[in-house]
Amino acid sequence: MPKKRILIIGGVAAGMKAASRLRRLDSQSEIVVVERSQRFSYGACALPYFVEGLFDDLDEVRQTPAGVTRDEAFFERVKGIKVLSGCEAVEINRQQQRVLVRNLESQSSEYIGYDNLVLATGCRPIMPALPGMELAGVLPLKTMEDAEKIDRFASDAKRAVVVGAGLIGLEMAEALVARGLIVTLLERQGQILDAVVDADLAGLAARELSKQGVDLRLNEGLVSLEGEAGRVCRAVTKSGSYAADLVVMAIGVRPETELAAAAGLRLGESGGILVDPQMRTSDPQIFAAGDCVEVVQLQTGKHLHLPLGSTANRQGRVLADQLGGSSDLFPGVLGTLIVKLFDQSLARTGLSASDATAAGYAAESVLISAPDRVHAYPGVKPVVIRLIADRNSRKLLGAQMAGPGEIAGRINVIVSLLSLNGTVDDLARLDLAYAPPFATAMDPLHQAANALRNKLDGLAASYTPLELQQRRQQLQPMILLDVRSPAEAEQVRIPGAILIPLGQLRERLHELPPDREIVPFCKLSLRGYEAARILLAAGFKKVRYLEGGVIAWPYELETAARQQVA
Amino acid sequence: MPKKRILIIGGVAAGMKAASRLRRLDSQSEIVVVERSQRFSYGACALPYFVEGLFDDLDEVRQTPAGVTRDEAFFERVKGIKVLSGCEAVEINRQQQRVLVRNLESQSSEYIGYDNLVLATGCRPIMPALPGMELAGVLPLKTMEDAEKIDRFASDAKRAVVVGAGLIGLEMAEALVARGLIVTLLERQGQILDAVVDADLAGLAARELSKQGVDLRLNEGLVSLEGEAGRVCRAVTKSGSYAADLVVMAIGVRPETELAAAAGLRLGESGGILVDPQMRTSDPQIFAAGDCVEVVQLQTGKHLHLPLGSTANRQGRVLADQLGGSSDLFPGVLGTLIVKLFDQSLARTGLSASDATAAGYAAESVLISAPDRVHAYPGVKPVVIRLIADRNSRKLLGAQMAGPGEIAGRINVIVSLLSLNGTVDDLARLDLAYAPPFATAMDPLHQAANALRNKLDGLAASYTPLELQQRRQQLQPMILLDVRSPAEAEQVRIPGAILIPLGQLRERLHELPPDREIVPFCKLSLRGYEAARILLAAGFKKVRYLEGGVIAWPYELETAARQQVA
Repeated sequence: MPKKRILIIGGVAAGMKAASRLRRLDSQSEIVVVERSQRFSYGACALPYFVEGLFDDLDEVRQTPAGVTRDEAFFERVKGIKVLSGCEAVEINRQQQRVLVRNLESQSSEYIGYDNLVLATGCRPIMPALPGMELAGVLPLKTMEDAEKIDRFASDAKRAVVVGAGLIGLEMAEALVARGLIVTLLERQGQILDAVVDADLAGLAARELSKQGVDLRLNEGLVSLEGEAGRVCRAVTKSGSYAADLVVMAIGVRPETELAAAAGLRLGESGGILVDPQMRTSDPQIFAAGDCVEVVQLQTGKHLHLPLGSTANRQGRVLADQLGGSSDLFPGVLGTLIVKLFDQSLARTGLSASDATAAGYAAESVLISAPDRVHAYPGVKPVVIRLIADRNSRKLLGAQMAGPGEIAGRINVIVSLLSLNGTVDDLARLDLAYAPPFATAMDPLHQAANALRNKLDGLAASYTPLELQQRRQQLQPMILLDVRSPAEAEQVRIPGAILIPLGQLRERLHELPPDREIVPFCKLSLRGYEAARILLAAGFKKVRYLEGGVIAWPYELETAARQQVA
Repeated sequence: MPKKRILIIGGVAAGMKAASRLRRLDSQSEIVVVERSQRFSYGACALPYFVEGLFDDLDEVRQTPAGVTRDEAFFERVKGIKVLSGCEAVEINRQQQRVLVRNLESQSSEYIGYDNLVLATGCRPIMPALPGMELAGVLPLKTMEDAEKIDRFASDAKRAVVVGAGLIGLEMAEALVARGLIVTLLERQGQILDAVVDADLAGLAARELSKQGVDLRLNEGLVSLEGEAGRVCRAVTKSGSYAADLVVMAIGVRPETELAAAAGLRLGESGGILVDPQMRTSDPQIFAAGDCVEVVQLQTGKHLHLPLGSTANRQGRVLADQLGGSSDLFPGVLGTLIVKLFDQSLARTGLSASDATAAGYAAESVLISAPDRVHAYPGVKPVVIRLIADRNSRKLLGAQMAGPGEIAGRINVIVSLLSLNGTVDDLARLDLAYAPPFATAMDPLHQAANALRNKLDGLAASYTPLELQQRRQQLQPMILLDVRSPAEAEQVRIPGAILIPLGQLRERLHELPPDREIVPFCKLSLRGYEAARILLAAGFKKVRYLEGGVIAWPYELETAARQQVA
């Protein structure tokens, strides 16, 4: 009996993970990987950090943790996997179970038969058909080749324009600033990370970008690129133009589905290849995984194209189990994302309040600020946490977090609770790890859970920074009440606030008009909430504290010298 | 109608948390706190870091995050809470609902009546009745006064002995080394953190202690202390004696229950005050919280005395809810602990494999090593993770982790899953946050879950470091097979191993005897597992890889020069 052959198209993340796991499960079958590039099995997510100069040799992204380069010989000798690099799959013949493969160097073609086929064709950057896109120095960041080209252009460039303030665009803006370039970041939407985090958290990150020297231009879509002697020199938008001898295009990606579509495999509503939880396509002999497939959002059931290296690896393993006689499922994703932005980080998982409302939940949310460890411990930094839950079931629905403090571990706690339908009360009761170098006695997560419980239980009414800013812009009458100390208020303040330190509030209540809405706040949110409780107990009816305090306020701030901060 | 009065005995963590929360829920009742010390409402967990010199002013431990000292005036003005500091509760009269309180300065006494009484009397360090315990320079670390005394003795001491390698003992050893002292750490048991983490993880931490200059002496119980001119100069054990002009006693704590016991309140099996999930004692008018009560281990139902600042705060809040007309529960703890030890950290939650077996579970466990972020990203450090699950239900039962890499967030993911009865499959499927600065595409937690699934599914057999060491000590015949590269093996190796790099294994199988047990390993555990799969596929029957590889091996290691490391 001839050996069973598993043919895998695409050798970056999902394809190589599937191949490696399958080999460990099945020592007999022939495993063949067809890969267009000469370089494969690499961590594409690390490419921005190569451009930034954080590692010397680009090949580090395709090395094992022990420093061995994952090349053809490595896969042959170590894993027993055959990789046909520099070869492109041209056509799938499902009836005959074979794929036409062209060697890109020799241009010769051959058919390779399969018992099972795996599509791990990935995605490609969207390059819009705008004038000037063909100019030298206009580049996406997707492959190792792209990273090398950007690296070369960056070494003799002075000014770069990055188009698109999504994850890749933000990472590239940081990388290029670190390389000493003057960087303009163009974003068509009114905020960075649109549809990823809420506008107020995005505002905190945008402030960090400005602080680090990135010229962020919101509501600015690219219209055309202009060049000199074939190299880009200028990016043009509707309202302006920006000098640039390097333009990085990062407006998004599309799944690579041409092969699948031509073979009649079903695509999903997001445009990715449709697969079931075993990663099987509409042809039972053909599987797919990674950036070319669409995923299900676990809470809404919506189909999304959300390519991530982590998802690709987990899917590759599930697929290998299916082929290798084991069993596992990839039920979907929560949409967890995290990104480092200079000294800040931003993360999210699950639903935003507006997502949740749209999905039919009675969404309630809260925003808190807190130190990430005991406030006297060296290295302490604030974190800002937004939690979203359903008012009726108290089920957690999502979270968004912003650093500089530690948020990666904390977003993963929410991921865990969302995955098991945990409530805000479950979160408040978690026996989280506590020692002063790592957390506060009440972890910021506990504080967030309790702040949300206070809202759900009718103990607190509040405004998010965004809500308050909108009311101020509408000139709603209110008293913005700063309950910090005079020394704190001297350093930085929210314009228009009046100051009554919390310790004087009980004796100065008569200074406040009983019929006016009062919005107390402090640095974090603790004294602001305390002030709200005091005001309510004293008979004031319209009291809402400002969630997150000064730390989470992404809008205008005044310093002592009345200068605007960012 | 006279105001309701809530009397709270003890003003450190649980007591002040309860008072503050209660005031926010109930603006009317009189809230009175009786506290022995002049200083209260402080974070006792931060005291070792004061001794270490990490902050200038001890008062930082009783400041709010905004820098305000929480003294009597602060509580009166800001919170509307009366604190009687320097006052000791002498006796509870439950029939008359009053407490006899003595002013420690004036020695005058008075009765204070209560509607509800809260006991937050804390715990005190165990000071065994050994010869010399009365000498100057023999000190526990519990209160701010203790910390000040140790600080003073440390400034003119050269050598310190710390007795007890539990959490406080370890933190104090680190603090005193940082102060420039020569430190001996005596531990009666055969490992540090006995009953907290398994012996092999404790061994990794012990190696770090030695590396940092702590003279760790295991199996050494203190017998007596000797002094000169009234100050300690020597700590004596059965087998030796150690010069010391400062001795820190850290062998454990006992709940302060004398008042409660004298009043006839029920104590639990661990010696702490018995409370229900609303923190009510056996007298329905009297509540208790914090280090003086016992807690329930959620998985086993066992009653424990496990005093922690985090637990005290959560209990204080639950208690306040009960008194303030709201409702919440404190169902128990998982026993989560974390400690920083120089450049390492150690954490645990839930059950160890032996705890789990004792509790009737079919416990299976695995140990893995992995980089904590993408291996090419700056600052990457290894983590070691042990996961424990039930073989039948696949429910997670516990975890232990060791740094230097990031473990605080990762142990909290396990805390979350344990709290909601998650399985190892749930863990493997979590949509954890991924970006190269924070994690690997397959997070170490995913790797641990998958390694455990491989064991549960019969794909892998393995030894823990402890198991392998025991078999080697019993001179069991086996081949310890190092599948790393020659360059890696040159740097550091496990004694007695033979080297066949993984890339040569398939062609050198004939060098291995088919009837002998083979134990492959590498730096982490990935190539070791891969080698095991290759050997099994080639017909070798007795194959078990070494969990965690060289990184997690806590026993003897050889360097190139054949010198022992630690």
